[in-house]
Amino acid sequence: MPIRQSTQPIVGKKRTDDDLAFPSRTRTRHDTSLAPRHQPPMENGGDAKWRFGAANPAVQASGRQSLRALVTRVFDCVDRSDLRPVAPLGHGDPSAFACFRTAAAAEEAVSAAVLSGKHNRYSSAGGVPDARSAVAAYLSRELPYELSTGDVFLTAGCNHAIEIMMAVLASPGANVLVPRPGYPMYEARAALCGLEFRRFDLLPEKEWEVDLDGVEALADENTVAMVIVNPNNPCGCVYSYDHLAKIAETARKLGIMVISDEVYDHCAFGSKPFVPMGVLGEIAPVVTIGGISKRWMVPGWRLGWIAATDPKGVLRDKNVLQSIMSYCAISVDAVTFVQGALPQILANTDKAFFEKAMEVMREAAEICYRKVEGIECITCPHKPEGSMFVMVKLDLSCLDGIADDVDFCTKVAREESVVICPGSGLGMKNWLRITFAVDPGLLEDGMERVKSFCQRHGKAKELK
Amino acid sequence: MPIRQSTQPIVGKKRTDDDLAFPSRTRTRHDTSLAPRHQPPMENGGDAKWRFGAANPAVQASGRQSLRALVTRVFDCVDRSDLRPVAPLGHGDPSAFACFRTAAAAEEAVSAAVLSGKHNRYSSAGGVPDARSAVAAYLSRELPYELSTGDVFLTAGCNHAIEIMMAVLASPGANVLVPRPGYPMYEARAALCGLEFRRFDLLPEKEWEVDLDGVEALADENTVAMVIVNPNNPCGCVYSYDHLAKIAETARKLGIMVISDEVYDHCAFGSKPFVPMGVLGEIAPVVTIGGISKRWMVPGWRLGWIAATDPKGVLRDKNVLQSIMSYCAISVDAVTFVQGALPQILANTDKAFFEKAMEVMREAAEICYRKVEGIECITCPHKPEGSMFVMVKLDLSCLDGIADDVDFCTKVAREESVVICPGSGLGMKNWLRITFAVDPGLLEDGMERVKSFCQRHGKAKELK
Repeated sequence: MPIRQSTQPIVGKKRTDDDLAFPSRTRTRHDTSLAPRHQPPMENGGDAKWRFGAANPAVQASGRQSLRALVTRVFDCVDRSDLRPVAPLGHGDPSAFACFRTAAAAEEAVSAAVLSGKHNRYSSAGGVPDARSAVAAYLSRELPYELSTGDVFLTAGCNHAIEIMMAVLASPGANVLVPRPGYPMYEARAALCGLEFRRFDLLPEKEWEVDLDGVEALADENTVAMVIVNPNNPCGCVYSYDHLAKIAETARKLGIMVISDEVYDHCAFGSKPFVPMGVLGEIAPVVTIGGISKRWMVPGWRLGWIAATDPKGVLRDKNVLQSIMSYCAISVDAVTFVQGALPQILANTDKAFFEKAMEVMREAAEICYRKVEGIECITCPHKPEGSMFVMVKLDLSCLDGIADDVDFCTKVAREESVVICPGSGLGMKNWLRITFAVDPGLLEDGMERVKSFCQRHGKAKELK
Repeated sequence: MPIRQSTQPIVGKKRTDDDLAFPSRTRTRHDTSLAPRHQPPMENGGDAKWRFGAANPAVQASGRQSLRALVTRVFDCVDRSDLRPVAPLGHGDPSAFACFRTAAAAEEAVSAAVLSGKHNRYSSAGGVPDARSAVAAYLSRELPYELSTGDVFLTAGCNHAIEIMMAVLASPGANVLVPRPGYPMYEARAALCGLEFRRFDLLPEKEWEVDLDGVEALADENTVAMVIVNPNNPCGCVYSYDHLAKIAETARKLGIMVISDEVYDHCAFGSKPFVPMGVLGEIAPVVTIGGISKRWMVPGWRLGWIAATDPKGVLRDKNVLQSIMSYCAISVDAVTFVQGALPQILANTDKAFFEKAMEVMREAAEICYRKVEGIECITCPHKPEGSMFVMVKLDLSCLDGIADDVDFCTKVAREESVVICPGSGLGMKNWLRITFAVDPGLLEDGMERVKSFCQRHGKAKELK
């Protein structure tokens, strides 16, 4: 049953032992792969002793930190006999919903690029020059200086950009500072290449701003960078110019670069406008990570970038750009025809598309916040104003028989077919990350189900 | 001049210092990034001391092994004032030539997938089930057993498949055996994740077959896998069933898996048919690496796969498949709409497309071989019968003022605008790798220019 092997969240199926099974006709009762270890290989006759097998423990450890693997495990708890639609509030992918379909101009640009037959060849390392230039111009619109083609490296999505930066910074002994709650890909990729990471806090009582005293306390002479995510996944906050300036000053004081993850750039629908960290690049060098996945709602197109928003050229002088190119030379590339379409995508997407998308997102965030307010055992410290997520605190004291956030999410999935991401996966035990980037109707329905789940399992209710 | 920053081989431009330059208006004379190191960071005022900079040496070392970086450096030697077209005989990418344009059915399938709006979302780790199933069925046609969806992992091209396998096998102390001449991506990715690699020889006098005695001599109790490339890049040979059987028996005897790189599958136009290593999977477990890059002539589409062609399920029992999935969970994915189009691409591509492509390839290989025979200082030990390349030996004794293969390629590029890959980049000093996957007219012209270069620099000629 191929579909049973899916790790695609939308398919809420239970994992079984068959998942990796080979067709029975290809298995033999005399499978000798587990032949006694003491048998010397040179004497292998009918019975082979296979030496490999202790697969790289670092890969398995990092894989366990994968957020999509975690959300998939929650999806796998959904009861397949439940006829209600699954409410996928666990991961940020609005592209599945008609109200969030990408711009026609973007689809047409890609279609034209592939049909032209002109963009089938290998990409150059770091991306095709025309596409790199288009991104440089796109980002420069909002900067007090101009980026050049050499400042931009195209990647196969933002996770690839994270992979590249963690590998480039992984000098022996170096460490990077990452936010808690955060996006676990930073930690997974850092761990895989032996780069130490240290977590600083985001402060719920201060609109999830960075705990800059904590940052200074964590940093030492081996600290090379701090990571911020703005607009923020998972908190749904947007950082003000003043806060970003304080972050830049702190980075300058510590002598470290700022990696600003802006994959949710312009996904700000509250009172604060989105401000690119690059506007403060004069104070401290900034590496901006971005892409079209979220603003164009096409996470499956795998087109991201790394931009050196660093007007003083520190990153170039310190050979960071050359190292990024070295990694690009032996890494994957963004698909060439998507790169070929990128200048048109950036230039021709109608402003109305972005406005409409943000309207729906604002409405969805409002629904989510209102519903959370109506649920006794979860509280939201800060109304979402950006990205596609909100962090809410779980109050276990008013719930009966719920051990922790993972237990809560597992049971909500099983009993209500609502998928929510446990905060533990983001470094915040007994918190939950809820995405509102879902069709508003399904979101409302899903949150209603969460409410009835909490009422059913609520202590207070049961005492009344 | 953005175009000057191109690392795209087709653009033969000289690299200049400006390449990574920032627009002058963004640079200041008072660039303080090089402030004295002894200055304590906590006292940074106007002058910041930046701590990062010693970029990960492993990344830079691996990047230096990149074949595309090497070929790009040769391209950069081309004299831009030469009005003759550059003859790109250094890398295997026929997609730039009309005679090698991909099948209309493939372009249309991708266009339809992107216009449908149904394939914009995140991929599941390891690929979308329908696409994995389609590849399993496609590969099973030529195997004595059937692959299931769980046996196939989609990757963002074959280089990504190599990255995954090297990372998965990189257990502390483990080593892999790789061919010489070989494809340096294996060594670059192995080095980056701390996996030791040992080179066994391919034997020119034996049609570039694997030196199996050498393999046995290299292997020890920490050897986990051996890599073969068939049809072979860079040698242009195709392995017979008998030789593949000997490889399988050797792997079984040593207790190691075979990683069979079949990215050039079916690119066989000589007397020997292409035989997938997986047909011998009963003898030793085989990991087959493949993709659509070469057979469909779309290297820019980044769609490859890893298949467990292992009917006894050894790779599953040893948790190798689970480790591959763990890596996929924190790695990039193939573009979702290309995956969405894959079943149609595999099913609807006209047989005539493959036949015509192989006809042109056979003709091109013939031209290349004939031309090499007419050039005194290079000899070809084995007429190409597969892939898109041939290895030829450089006889420096009959050349005047040529130091080695790199010097030869540099000067041929400068004087004749012909780009050839130095054998050193593949582990074979004073050999050359020539690709014939080029428009036959340009190939013939390019080889003529190589001939006149050799005549001009030939000792014998000058003495006459």
